[in-house]
Amino acid sequence: MTRRSHRLPPCHNSLTTALLMDTYQITMAYAYWKNGTHARSAAFDLIFRKNPFSGEFTIFAGLEECLRFISNFKFTEEDISFLSNEPLSTSMDVNFFKFLRQLDCTQIKIFAQLEGSIVFPRVPLMRVEGPLVMVQLVETTLLTLVNYASLVATNAARHRLVAGDSATLLEFGLRRAQGPDGGVSASRYAYMGGFNGTSNLEAGRQFAIPCKGTLAHSYVQSHQGFQDIGDPRLRLPDGNMCPDFLALVGLFKSKWLYKESFPDDLRWTKTNQSELAAFTSYALAFPSNFLVLVDTYDVLKSGIPNFLAVGLALRSCGYEPLGIRIDSGDLSYLSLRAREMLQHTQDLLGASYAEGFAQLGITASNDIHEEVLHSLNQHGHAITSFGIGTHLVTCLRQPALGCVYKLVEIDGAPRIKLSEDVEKVTIPGRKEAFRLYLKNGEPVVDVMLQGDEPTPKVDCRILCRHPFISSKRAYVQPARVERLFHLVWDGMNGGVPPDLDLSLCTARSRCMSSIKMMRSDHLRYSNPTPYKVSVSEQLYDFIHKLWLEEAPVGEIM
Amino acid sequence: MTRRSHRLPPCHNSLTTALLMDTYQITMAYAYWKNGTHARSAAFDLIFRKNPFSGEFTIFAGLEECLRFISNFKFTEEDISFLSNEPLSTSMDVNFFKFLRQLDCTQIKIFAQLEGSIVFPRVPLMRVEGPLVMVQLVETTLLTLVNYASLVATNAARHRLVAGDSATLLEFGLRRAQGPDGGVSASRYAYMGGFNGTSNLEAGRQFAIPCKGTLAHSYVQSHQGFQDIGDPRLRLPDGNMCPDFLALVGLFKSKWLYKESFPDDLRWTKTNQSELAAFTSYALAFPSNFLVLVDTYDVLKSGIPNFLAVGLALRSCGYEPLGIRIDSGDLSYLSLRAREMLQHTQDLLGASYAEGFAQLGITASNDIHEEVLHSLNQHGHAITSFGIGTHLVTCLRQPALGCVYKLVEIDGAPRIKLSEDVEKVTIPGRKEAFRLYLKNGEPVVDVMLQGDEPTPKVDCRILCRHPFISSKRAYVQPARVERLFHLVWDGMNGGVPPDLDLSLCTARSRCMSSIKMMRSDHLRYSNPTPYKVSVSEQLYDFIHKLWLEEAPVGEIM
Repeated sequence: MTRRSHRLPPCHNSLTTALLMDTYQITMAYAYWKNGTHARSAAFDLIFRKNPFSGEFTIFAGLEECLRFISNFKFTEEDISFLSNEPLSTSMDVNFFKFLRQLDCTQIKIFAQLEGSIVFPRVPLMRVEGPLVMVQLVETTLLTLVNYASLVATNAARHRLVAGDSATLLEFGLRRAQGPDGGVSASRYAYMGGFNGTSNLEAGRQFAIPCKGTLAHSYVQSHQGFQDIGDPRLRLPDGNMCPDFLALVGLFKSKWLYKESFPDDLRWTKTNQSELAAFTSYALAFPSNFLVLVDTYDVLKSGIPNFLAVGLALRSCGYEPLGIRIDSGDLSYLSLRAREMLQHTQDLLGASYAEGFAQLGITASNDIHEEVLHSLNQHGHAITSFGIGTHLVTCLRQPALGCVYKLVEIDGAPRIKLSEDVEKVTIPGRKEAFRLYLKNGEPVVDVMLQGDEPTPKVDCRILCRHPFISSKRAYVQPARVERLFHLVWDGMNGGVPPDLDLSLCTARSRCMSSIKMMRSDHLRYSNPTPYKVSVSEQLYDFIHKLWLEEAPVGEIM
Repeated sequence: MTRRSHRLPPCHNSLTTALLMDTYQITMAYAYWKNGTHARSAAFDLIFRKNPFSGEFTIFAGLEECLRFISNFKFTEEDISFLSNEPLSTSMDVNFFKFLRQLDCTQIKIFAQLEGSIVFPRVPLMRVEGPLVMVQLVETTLLTLVNYASLVATNAARHRLVAGDSATLLEFGLRRAQGPDGGVSASRYAYMGGFNGTSNLEAGRQFAIPCKGTLAHSYVQSHQGFQDIGDPRLRLPDGNMCPDFLALVGLFKSKWLYKESFPDDLRWTKTNQSELAAFTSYALAFPSNFLVLVDTYDVLKSGIPNFLAVGLALRSCGYEPLGIRIDSGDLSYLSLRAREMLQHTQDLLGASYAEGFAQLGITASNDIHEEVLHSLNQHGHAITSFGIGTHLVTCLRQPALGCVYKLVEIDGAPRIKLSEDVEKVTIPGRKEAFRLYLKNGEPVVDVMLQGDEPTPKVDCRILCRHPFISSKRAYVQPARVERLFHLVWDGMNGGVPPDLDLSLCTARSRCMSSIKMMRSDHLRYSNPTPYKVSVSEQLYDFIHKLWLEEAPVGEIM
């Protein structure tokens, strides 16, 4: 089958309409149109200036959603009717609305870095080219779709770095997210950044992300005792029926948990009966997925003993329990003590009753974030799975990424945006960008070139200069050269090029492998080393020539 | 026309489906159903425990959206098909999915405080009553719809308090919001909290919020000089035509702006020509809405003089310019200098040329937040309008509000949720809540009572007790008593009661008037005084009785 360039289905969120833009996009569009400059050929760079979370890397996310938006951009009759009745429109020429009606992204071309890849400040994430009016109209929506997506993917990748490869990371943030698609996007982009699953079913459905969940405190609270359980029978894996699972739980509770051979602190005198009933009813519903929340009353004195009673009963019926979840308290201490208790149970009851108990899963949740993970690593813990919500999805440490969208060329003339703050000066013109790798496989520098310069070549030295600081420069002889910009939208040729893989899976793998390639000091938590972003000698000279032309000479009198 | 109870249209965001929930809602639903306890009558409180932003008040928002969700809750065939194919479902009884198919919110009742009102920790925002399985299923979605809405409305109200009543506050945050409906919700709830408008057209359309916007730096950059202007003619208000507006601008520029009578620092020698061209083309497009961004090159040396040249030319044609926007630099200094220059222009050119210039609008944007407003008040400024984006919509100071949803009663039995942290202990049972007012009109305390207690009466003393600290109590003799909970959803009786006004306008007025009533020390920025939240003597005794029954006695050996 030959694949063809194609358009994409609509955005996942119905709010992402052609009107999801700032008002000034329409006022500017009108002024361009009125002035006859709307069709001029323009290029905008979408860039960010600073890595988030005091880090030195960012994960680029949101591209697929941007291309869905671009694929379907069109003002509807309702949009036009709304716009033409806005107070601002009273003085507008009505022909403008006819003009708006026929706009779409057919004349736009977009070059971009690939979704899920590791990216750095100043190197454009996207370059959007086309008629001035169209590339200006899509500004805000592209920013909205990239800013939060990249922020969350980066946050998730940072959590993965601290938690290590073997931990299971679950995104639990829907209830605290900034609105419904704050939640759904967080699930999607946290998965891209290296999480294993989400609690969010809608996100699970839309993006085929594994969904995880067991029970809440309210489930435990809703029970008072065994009298709350309707049917005590449990169907066994072999098809037979255990006629009274409650009795079995009772047996394990009385027989094993008060056994004299248990050390004092593992001999429980009184656990909470509503909790025991809740665990039992949950086991009857999910005998092969038995994982329960053990902190409703007291983790060590009630939750774990109750879990053991039900878990041992289940195991005696041929089901393997999965483990426990702790949602409060000192997660380091509690998880280590829990592991000890599981190990002791296995040691004491032996293979026939408790094999595998020592390795059961311990899930922890409760306000976990990157720093908490660091601290748990320092103090020791026995957690195998983390449920991370609020701080992951709202990005407490920095709730916004500052992507901007800047005009870099109009009618073939490169434009520069000046600023008192050197970091805010833009790099003018249409550029190419390459990542240069050393022999050991590590990327060492991203370099931007003017469009007419030859591509950097393997084993040929190239001078890489800091764009603004003249003394910072280095010759690099790359062992590998990677072109960073890819044509991702070509409106005149059908839309998305046939070979572009926009799947979440691919972006997720790209994220994980591009992080693995980095030198570890760029990734570390404290004082990471900045990765080098540079320009060619030719581009350096051009920037500074244009800068001097545009900047007024100060006069101090 | 007699109004009837009614259901509401769907949620504004298509992502707010019945599946927008945590997985554990479905696993718990299955366990309740399997266990035969799904139909038990339950009540959940939706509460928050701590006011955001180190403040002592919160604005409740999100209710209308919650009721839209409740009105339309129903699993679709696609939802059921997705759920029944999830890995967790492999062990489930298929009849469960038939059961899910027929669920809706007909048997639910919701009591709530009114949207836009000022609210305090521990007093429920909503109480959701009905069959256990249904009230459990809606948990996450209600939290998602209330948490961010209330956070942003509170943030906006705080900005309004600092900015004062006369300032125009505009929400400009779409591009930095946490996703598309992070942006749209921010516009909606910032307006509820006291903002005057938004830049977001989609929000403007959906919620009839005034939309504002002019032009971006890229508009200015896209011009190079007067050669970029197609048609130099300007239609005058009286219908006549000015044949060459460019020449008129040139005239004002050369004739007035270099006039010898201007003091040295107001005599400009060289302003940026691309900026002058951009302002001129914008004036041609929007002669009666002339407000431009003056900081692309240099506010004082180029932006304002260019604005004056075009603004004076416009005025000579019979149009009144609106003002300028400054998006960078020291907003205090620049706005004061700008005001001086406008005043001086008026003084010098007199009524015929520049009347009203001294009072022109000065809009400021650029990373403004509550603290910046405080600092501007301290240092002085001449800003009449603020465009506030990133920090308002992402709530930098605290990006999540911690609303929780807790079981308080099942089958008539009040339930308490214990915690090591006293602040996290829930107040059991179905409660009524009242706000008691003093003679001067100030609210003085919110008090919760058990359902069977008599309503507090005007001029009768009632003992109000802190729910947990026994020594904190006071007799209050209210001059006015306000019932806080209103029936907002009665599924068995058609849905939303006929007299409930859920409009954004009403919520916005309620927010502004309920803030005005508060004693100012509860509202202030530094060290505000906590507003009192209390329980009746009867409820106090009940809480502590239940607490002692449920809490295990520690044993220290």
